[in-house]
Amino acid sequence: MIVKTDAVIIGAGPVGLFSVFELGILGLNVQVIDNLDKIGGQCIELYPDKPIYDIPGIPDCTGEILIKNLIKQIKPFKAGFHLNQRVNALKKNNKLWHVITSENKIFETPNIIIAGGVGSFEPRKVEAKNVEKFHENGFYYFVRDKSKFKDQVVAIFGSGDSALDWTLELSNIAKKVYLIHRRDDFKGAAYTLSKIKEISKLGRIEIKTFYQLKGINGDKKLENIEIQKEGQPVEILKIDSALAFFGLKMELGPIANWGLNLEDKCILVNTKNFQTNEEGIFAIGDICTYPGKLKLILSGFHEGALAARECFARARPNEKFIFQYTTSSTQIHKRLGIK
Amino acid sequence: MIVKTDAVIIGAGPVGLFSVFELGILGLNVQVIDNLDKIGGQCIELYPDKPIYDIPGIPDCTGEILIKNLIKQIKPFKAGFHLNQRVNALKKNNKLWHVITSENKIFETPNIIIAGGVGSFEPRKVEAKNVEKFHENGFYYFVRDKSKFKDQVVAIFGSGDSALDWTLELSNIAKKVYLIHRRDDFKGAAYTLSKIKEISKLGRIEIKTFYQLKGINGDKKLENIEIQKEGQPVEILKIDSALAFFGLKMELGPIANWGLNLEDKCILVNTKNFQTNEEGIFAIGDICTYPGKLKLILSGFHEGALAARECFARARPNEKFIFQYTTSSTQIHKRLGIK
Repeated sequence: MIVKTDAVIIGAGPVGLFSVFELGILGLNVQVIDNLDKIGGQCIELYPDKPIYDIPGIPDCTGEILIKNLIKQIKPFKAGFHLNQRVNALKKNNKLWHVITSENKIFETPNIIIAGGVGSFEPRKVEAKNVEKFHENGFYYFVRDKSKFKDQVVAIFGSGDSALDWTLELSNIAKKVYLIHRRDDFKGAAYTLSKIKEISKLGRIEIKTFYQLKGINGDKKLENIEIQKEGQPVEILKIDSALAFFGLKMELGPIANWGLNLEDKCILVNTKNFQTNEEGIFAIGDICTYPGKLKLILSGFHEGALAARECFARARPNEKFIFQYTTSSTQIHKRLGIK
Repeated sequence: MIVKTDAVIIGAGPVGLFSVFELGILGLNVQVIDNLDKIGGQCIELYPDKPIYDIPGIPDCTGEILIKNLIKQIKPFKAGFHLNQRVNALKKNNKLWHVITSENKIFETPNIIIAGGVGSFEPRKVEAKNVEKFHENGFYYFVRDKSKFKDQVVAIFGSGDSALDWTLELSNIAKKVYLIHRRDDFKGAAYTLSKIKEISKLGRIEIKTFYQLKGINGDKKLENIEIQKEGQPVEILKIDSALAFFGLKMELGPIANWGLNLEDKCILVNTKNFQTNEEGIFAIGDICTYPGKLKLILSGFHEGALAARECFARARPNEKFIFQYTTSSTQIHKRLGIK
C-alpha cells in the first residue's frame, strides 16, 4: 500500500519535529521516519539530561524537555511517525517521490525533507567469526520483537543501559540470559545492575565478565558461540540467540547513495529554500551545508521554516502562498485548534 | 567621551536581544541602542499580550514573556542599554565605525548589527498651525522629563494608554491637566479612565471630548492653543504645555541614509554572515532581506547567530574562531556564570 502525503521528513530530532510545525501551519500533512525507536534524535539519544543554553527564549533546558515541548507544539497536526526503520530507497515518479523504508512502507510525496542530524544512528558492529553470517538469524543488534527470545538461552554482550535493560527484560521470558562483558565495570544504571545481580542468584541470569565474543558456530542455525577470557583457551557456550549492544555510531547511511551533492559528508543546499540539487528533496539541520552554516539546533529550525514554503508551492501548485503570522492568523489558529 | 565596544546593536527587540547572547558566548561585549523607552521592540510595543505560537520549543507565549525570557537569557553578559535615543549618524574611522546617537553618545566599534525591526517607532505627527514651531518647546510627543510640567497647565491629546497614563501621572504634579480627544471613546484601559474621571470631579483634570487641536499661539513661548468642536467656533485654551499621543508609526528613519543597499525598504544582506554592502555593518531580523527571507522572529535569531561569528573575526582578528556547543563548552559555561 502506498501512503500519499504532502511531505516526508526523515529524522525525528528537534529540527524534523519543528518542520512538522512549519508545514502544519501551512495546512500540509506530514509523515516522519526515524531509525531510532523513539522520537527526539540526538537530543534524546546523546544528551537527554544535559542542559542546552542557546535555544532562543529558553535560558536553560535539557534535550529531553526541548523534545517534550516540541512534541506538544506539533500535537495539533497529527503527523504520522514511523520509527525503528530507515529509508532504504528513493524513487522518482514524475514530479513525485516514492520513499521506501526498511519496513517496506512506501510513501508518495512531492517533498522529502532530510533532517537526519549527522546521519542515522547505526549499532557499532562486532568483528568476530561468522557474525555476518548469522546477522538477523540468531545474532542481533536490536530487539525488534522480544517474543522471539521466549524460552531461549540468550547471550547479551555489552555494559551499557541497553545491555542491562534487555538482560533484565528478557530474563522474564527467556530460559536463561548470559550477560557478557569484556571488563567488569558496567556503564549502565547501578540500580539495574543490582537487580540483575539479585536475579542471578536464582540462576536465570549469569554474569560473565572479562569475556569477549570470538565467533559463532552453526550450520543454518546458530548452535553455539565461542567466548574467551584474555590469555585463556576459547570456551564454547551453547545458546539460541546472541545480542550485542556496543553503542551507536552515526553514519550517513543510504542517504550517501541518493545522488545528492555532498561536501564533507553533508548535503549541499541553497539558502533560499534549503533544497538540494534534486527538486523536492530538502536538507535541513546538521546534515546540510552552505556558506556560513553553523550546526546549531536554532539554524535547523530556521531552515525548516524556509523549506516549508517551497514544500507548500510543490504540494499545492494551484494555491497562492500567503504569509501569515501565528499571532494574528485565524486560519493558523484553526489549524492549531485554538478557539 | 567615546565608548569602545566589540559590537553595537541597533534595536532592543527579540532579535537584537538574542544577538547579545550569540555575541556574549563568543566573549564579545555589546552596547544596545533603541529609540523606544523600554526593551522589547514590537513584542512589547505592539503585542505584549498577544500569544505567539511559532517560537520553536515554546508552544505558546506572549510577546512580553518572550522578552522577559530573552532578558533572563542574556543577563550574564551585562550588555549596555541606551534607550530613548536613536542612531543619528555612522562615521567610518579606518576599520572602525563611530556610532552617534540623538543623545550625543558616541561608540567606537568594528561591528554594527542593525536589528531594527521594520524601522524605528516614530510618533504620529499632528498637522496644525505652529506645531512645528513649538516642537520640543511647549509642544511634545514624548515625556522625557516629567518635572518640566510641575505646576503647569497641560493639555494632553489622544485616547490611548499613553494619553490616559500621562494624564493620571501628570495630574499629581501639574496645576491642571486637560485630556482632549476628538471623539468620546477612549481606547486606553477602562480602569485608568475611571480613575481619571474620579479625579476630574476634584477639578485637577478636565476631560474635553469632540475637540481637535487647530493651532498653537505664542511669540517665543507657547501662550495658548486653539481647539475646536466640529461645526463650532474655535476656542482658545490658555495652557503652558501640550502633549500629543496619537500612537507610533514605523519608519526606516536615518538608516535610509547610511549608503546601504536597500530593496523594498529593507537592507540587502548576504546569507553567509548577514553583512550588508558595508563591511562591519550587519542587518538581521525584519529589516533585512535576501532570497527566501521570511519575517519570522525565529529567522532573526538564526541570522544573529551567523552574524556573530563574523563579528568575532572582526573584533578579534588575531584569535581563531572555535565553534563550541553551549551544552559542553566549559568556556561558554564560565561566560554564562554556570558552575
